[in-house]
Amino acid sequence: MSRWGIVVATKKGDFILVNYVCRVKETGEIVESTMGEGHPHEEHPHEPLLVVVGEGWVPKGLDEALEGVEVGQRLEVEVPPSKGFGERDLSKVRLLPLRRFTREGVNPTPGMQVEVNGRPAIVRSVGAGRVQVDFNHPLAGKTLLYEVTVEKALRTRAEKVKALIHRRLPSVDLEKLGLKITPKEVAVELPEESFFLEGLQLAKRQISSDIQKYIPGIVETSFIERFKAAEASSEQSQGQGSPREDSGSSP
Amino acid sequence: MSRWGIVVATKKGDFILVNYVCRVKETGEIVESTMGEGHPHEEHPHEPLLVVVGEGWVPKGLDEALEGVEVGQRLEVEVPPSKGFGERDLSKVRLLPLRRFTREGVNPTPGMQVEVNGRPAIVRSVGAGRVQVDFNHPLAGKTLLYEVTVEKALRTRAEKVKALIHRRLPSVDLEKLGLKITPKEVAVELPEESFFLEGLQLAKRQISSDIQKYIPGIVETSFIERFKAAEASSEQSQGQGSPREDSGSSP
Repeated sequence: MSRWGIVVATKKGDFILVNYVCRVKETGEIVESTMGEGHPHEEHPHEPLLVVVGEGWVPKGLDEALEGVEVGQRLEVEVPPSKGFGERDLSKVRLLPLRRFTREGVNPTPGMQVEVNGRPAIVRSVGAGRVQVDFNHPLAGKTLLYEVTVEKALRTRAEKVKALIHRRLPSVDLEKLGLKITPKEVAVELPEESFFLEGLQLAKRQISSDIQKYIPGIVETSFIERFKAAEASSEQSQGQGSPREDSGSSP
Repeated sequence: MSRWGIVVATKKGDFILVNYVCRVKETGEIVESTMGEGHPHEEHPHEPLLVVVGEGWVPKGLDEALEGVEVGQRLEVEVPPSKGFGERDLSKVRLLPLRRFTREGVNPTPGMQVEVNGRPAIVRSVGAGRVQVDFNHPLAGKTLLYEVTVEKALRTRAEKVKALIHRRLPSVDLEKLGLKITPKEVAVELPEESFFLEGLQLAKRQISSDIQKYIPGIVETSFIERFKAAEASSEQSQGQGSPREDSGSSP
């Protein structure tokens, strides 16, 4: 409901936060959940997930079901393999010699996850010096049941930008973020504790790319990192070593 | 000479560019040079070196000699061990069992550089199952002869900031750098090709620290990185993979 009481349905390109539980239809096994173990982003395992509707961030069957729903609405969505992780492909099941595994110290047993030539696979059976290995996605051929609730729709550009940043840099405290948004530009000031996050530069590029793709009109994203004197001098006393180390004067 | 024809001598804290050749007095061997092989910063092997006078960036004997000289002046400076790399310490020469080396596949020979417990050393002699190893700095105990020319003094804050950046990020093209300097703040806009340099974040912290230490009045240094739409979209087509990879929806 909007603030005038008009029901607003989601449409392609909308930013929504969803909670869901995904089960395998045949067995009832939970394979993913935003409310505990199996959260797609493990850093915040009890947090609704950002979805830009229609962009393929979730399996197609779910993505399609998220169009035209209302905030607060609860859906049950059945996703067949064709709109989920595909049908099982029998040509992806192979027999491999047992010694391929034993010479690397691996003793394969049914159900074990292995890696063959860099590709993940599951051991199906072992016998007579041979191992049956399955390269299909573990959810291929499965019909999935999603129970989904649309928790919130993000309407302002600031909310959207923050959500896109959070998706790539989940450990950064959004409260400490400086944000300046003009019709064409987004400027993000990062808090100091994020300067040495692993993968920061890649995340910046991804965030820029996301912002410019999903927020119409934005053609430039800049990141600002401020180093203040007090911090810099405490760094010096800790980290800078003796002047000679610093001089580069040893041959 | 200043532009009024007055001779200006260097003083502590001045930024100067020097060229030098450093020889071992006893042997005449060149151990370092800003004009070819043995340059202290190997990325630009024919470039004068930045020195902030009196800050210990070069051995003490040379540093002291650089105070009170004029631009264009050529000096010959003799640096004794006490103002260079120290006297040789005989307690830093040790005998180690040969098998310590052989079990790691190292066959030590006199003059070989080795690392023992993470510390660099030089093999002096080998015999009877034992190896004499010297942990002294290779120039300890040596008197050094420097031939130095003061090529330039950097006077403006912009020149100084650029030189400090160049010292930590020698591969960044200074022509492409955006620089905004106010009495208290320096803002550095980095060119796009530098965003993925190894060690960039550490270099930023060091540069901030240097600027705030060596340029009076500056209390904040900020770095700005701009990602523009055209670049971002070319990144996307190359690097982003399929939507499903991106969705994080596999358990």
